[in-house]
Amino acid sequence: MRMYDLIKKKRDGGILTEQEIAYMIQGYTNGKIPDYQMSAMMMAMYYQGLNEKETLSLTMEMAHSGELLDLSAIHGVKVDKHSTGGVGDKTSLALTPMAAACGVKVAKMSGRGLGHTGGTIDKLESFAGFRTDITTEQFLSQVNRIGVAIMGQTADLAPADKKLYALRDVTATVDQMSLIASSIMSKKLAAGADAIVLDVKTGSGAFMKKEEDAEALAREMVRIGNGAGRKTTAVITDMDQPLGFAVGNALEVREAINTLSGNGPEDFLELCLTLGSHMLLAAGKADSEKQAREKLRGVIADGSALKKLADFVAAQGGDADMVYHPERLPRAAFTESVCAGSDGYISRIICDEVGICSLMLGGGRETKEDVIDLSVGIVFHKKKGDAVQSGDVVATLHANDKEKLAAAKNRLLRAIAVSAEPVSKVPLIKRVIT
Amino acid sequence: MRMYDLIKKKRDGGILTEQEIAYMIQGYTNGKIPDYQMSAMMMAMYYQGLNEKETLSLTMEMAHSGELLDLSAIHGVKVDKHSTGGVGDKTSLALTPMAAACGVKVAKMSGRGLGHTGGTIDKLESFAGFRTDITTEQFLSQVNRIGVAIMGQTADLAPADKKLYALRDVTATVDQMSLIASSIMSKKLAAGADAIVLDVKTGSGAFMKKEEDAEALAREMVRIGNGAGRKTTAVITDMDQPLGFAVGNALEVREAINTLSGNGPEDFLELCLTLGSHMLLAAGKADSEKQAREKLRGVIADGSALKKLADFVAAQGGDADMVYHPERLPRAAFTESVCAGSDGYISRIICDEVGICSLMLGGGRETKEDVIDLSVGIVFHKKKGDAVQSGDVVATLHANDKEKLAAAKNRLLRAIAVSAEPVSKVPLIKRVIT
Repeated sequence: MRMYDLIKKKRDGGILTEQEIAYMIQGYTNGKIPDYQMSAMMMAMYYQGLNEKETLSLTMEMAHSGELLDLSAIHGVKVDKHSTGGVGDKTSLALTPMAAACGVKVAKMSGRGLGHTGGTIDKLESFAGFRTDITTEQFLSQVNRIGVAIMGQTADLAPADKKLYALRDVTATVDQMSLIASSIMSKKLAAGADAIVLDVKTGSGAFMKKEEDAEALAREMVRIGNGAGRKTTAVITDMDQPLGFAVGNALEVREAINTLSGNGPEDFLELCLTLGSHMLLAAGKADSEKQAREKLRGVIADGSALKKLADFVAAQGGDADMVYHPERLPRAAFTESVCAGSDGYISRIICDEVGICSLMLGGGRETKEDVIDLSVGIVFHKKKGDAVQSGDVVATLHANDKEKLAAAKNRLLRAIAVSAEPVSKVPLIKRVIT
Repeated sequence: MRMYDLIKKKRDGGILTEQEIAYMIQGYTNGKIPDYQMSAMMMAMYYQGLNEKETLSLTMEMAHSGELLDLSAIHGVKVDKHSTGGVGDKTSLALTPMAAACGVKVAKMSGRGLGHTGGTIDKLESFAGFRTDITTEQFLSQVNRIGVAIMGQTADLAPADKKLYALRDVTATVDQMSLIASSIMSKKLAAGADAIVLDVKTGSGAFMKKEEDAEALAREMVRIGNGAGRKTTAVITDMDQPLGFAVGNALEVREAINTLSGNGPEDFLELCLTLGSHMLLAAGKADSEKQAREKLRGVIADGSALKKLADFVAAQGGDADMVYHPERLPRAAFTESVCAGSDGYISRIICDEVGICSLMLGGGRETKEDVIDLSVGIVFHKKKGDAVQSGDVVATLHANDKEKLAAAKNRLLRAIAVSAEPVSKVPLIKRVIT
C-alpha cells in the first residue's frame, strides 16, 4: 500500500477501505507518512468528503492510536458529556454534580480554554488547590466513591488526532464535517465511557455558526458514537448569545453554584435539565425524560447536587468551603457598568465578541502558554429580547487592569445592540438527535 | 501575509494576486513555507484551478526563483524547442542541426530519460566523448560559432519548480493543466530563448493520453509564453505509436543520422519539417511555412544539416566521425525478430509498452541513479495501418542479455495487434496552436 495511491483515490472521489484508513493513520502516527502527504489527503477529503463507513473507520483508528482509558473498574454505566464549546459555557460545573447526585457515573476528561471559548479545567481551578492532573487509579476510584471525576486529557489519548488536528489547523482543512466529527469522537471513544451526551452549539459564539451545520455535525457524531457501540445523544443548543449571565472563570463558577442552589439563570438551568435527563436515561437512572427532569430538580431542591459539587471539589484537592461561600472565589478589583443607550429591546449580543472581551480582560488565552486571570469577566443582567430603558445596566465588567477594562468596555459596547421594536426570544434547545 | 490565508482563499475558489503568488513561491523556495502547507495548496489548486493571470504569475515567479540564463551574447533570435516527451522521440537530434543549418540560433537545455521516455542527453552520449556539462560561456560561444548547443539543465534553473514538482509528484497533484504548463514553461522562460516551439505529444506513449488534454496544455503554454513576451508556438503530434521506427538511444541516433542523410522515416521527417518551419518563422529565417520547409529540405539535400550535426558533436567533445560512420555507434550483441502471427493490418502498437520494453532491455532508467545501455532497443519495420502477412518481421529487438531479451520480446508481442480489417493511418500532425 502506498500513501500516494490513497491520496489519488480520494482525490478522484474514491472510497477508502478500513484497511487503507488504518494504514494511513498508523503510518502518520508513527511518522512513516509525512505531513505533506497527509495535508494533501486532508485537502482531498475537504473536497470529496468521507462516507459514513470511512468516517467511522477514521475515528476508530484515531481512538486506537494511543492509550484507551479502561473504565471497567467503575461500577455501572459510565456517561460522558461533551460540549463543542461556547461563551459562558459552565455546564459541566453544574451538570456533572447534578447527574452524579442522581446516581450517574460521570468519568470525564476536560480541556483548557483557548481563544474566545473557556475551558472547564480553568474554571475548576477557581477553587483554590483544585487539581486535574490526577492518576487514572485516583480517577476511577473517585468515580466509584462519589460518582464524578474530571481529569485533564492525557498526552497519549488519541495522539493521531492531536497530530492530525495540528496539521489541519495550519493547512485550512479544519472545516470538514466528517473530520471535525471524527476528531471530537476519537477522543470521546478513547476516554472509554459507555454513553455520550453531546451539546452541539450553534450561533455567533459557536464553532458552527449555522444551525444546519451544527445539525450535520451532530448527526455525524451520533452516527459515529452509535456505530462504535456507545449510546450517543446530541442536543443542539443556541450559542448566539452567552449561556446564562456570567462569562469568565470564577464568575461562571459562582453562577454554577447559584444554579445548584436553586438560583440559576433560566436558560442555563434548562440546558442542565435537558442534557442531564439524557444522561440519566442513558445510565438507566430514569424511565422517561419527565421523570429524569424531576429527579434533577429534586437534587437541586434537596441540596444534594450542591453537596456533590463540594465532595467533588474536595476529592480533587480543592477548597470545598468555597462552594458554600462563593464570595471567597477569586474577585476582580474593579467593576464597570455597560448601559443601554436608548429605550427598547436587546436585539443582539454578539457572542464571540463577548468571549474576546473576556479574553482582553485577561480571562482567556490567545496562545496555549498564556496565564489567565480567573477573577475577571463579564456578568450580563439582560438577555436577548429583554426590554431595557436608556441607562439600564446591561452588563458589568470585572477587571484588574484599567487599561484592559477600557478597551474591553469599548468593544463590548459595540457587541450589544438595542432595537426600538420588540425582539423575539430565541429558544435555547433547538433539537435532540439520537 | 500568511500562507494559511492563501490556502483558504484558493480552497474557497478565490483568485490569488501576483503578490500572493510571489510570497508563496519565494517563501517555499527559501524554506519559510513548509511542504505540508504547499501540498495542501497544490491540492486546492488541483480542484479550483488557476486562471490565466495566476498561471502566468506562478510561471514567472518560478522562472525567477533561480538563475536566469542570459543569452544576449548570442547574435540573432534564439529559438528553443521542447517536447513533452514520448517513445522514439529523437527529434532534437535531427531538428536542431537542420534549424541551425538554416541560420536559426538554437540554444537548448535538455534532460535525461526517466521511465518509458528517453532523453536527448542520453541519446547524444552515444557519440563517444560527447559532453553536456559545458560552461555557460562555452554554450554561448558555441551557439554564436556553429548555431547550436545543447547543455544539461543547471541546478539553479527554476529551483522553485524543481522543489514544487518533487512535492506534487508524491502528493497526487501533478495532473493539473495550469500546474503542468507552468512547470514546463518556467524552465523554458529561465532558459532565456526569444522564441519557443513546443511539441505537445498525445496518445498512449505521451503524458497526455487524450488529444483534448494535449490541446488544453498546449493552449496554456502558448498563453504563458506569449504572456511572458516570448513568441510561442505549439504543435500537437501523435504519440499513440513510437515516432519513426527506432526506440533506444544509439538506434535513435542512427535514425536521426539517416534522416539528415535523406533516408529518414516519413513521419519523423514530417515532424522535423513542421517544427523546424515554425522555428525558422520565429527566427525570421523564412517568410512562409512553404519557404521554411523548402529551406529545411534543402539543408538535408545539400548535406549541410548532417555536417552541422558533425560540427555540433565535435564542438561538445564527441566523436564526429560516427556521424558519417553510424555503424561505429554502440551496437547490441543480439537481435531477435518479432513477427506477425496472422495476415492483416497493424492495428495497434501500444506506445508506452514499447517504451517499457526498451527499459527492460536496459535502455532506460527506472530511477534517476540507474545506468543505461545505449546500444539496446527496438527497431520497427511497420507502422500502424501497414499491411502484414503472417511471419513478416514487425520489429527487431536489440539486446545484450538473453533473459532481458526474452522478457522484452514477450511483452512487445502483447503490445502489437494485427487486425483482419484495414486500419486507417493516423496523421502525425494534429494541430498547430499559436
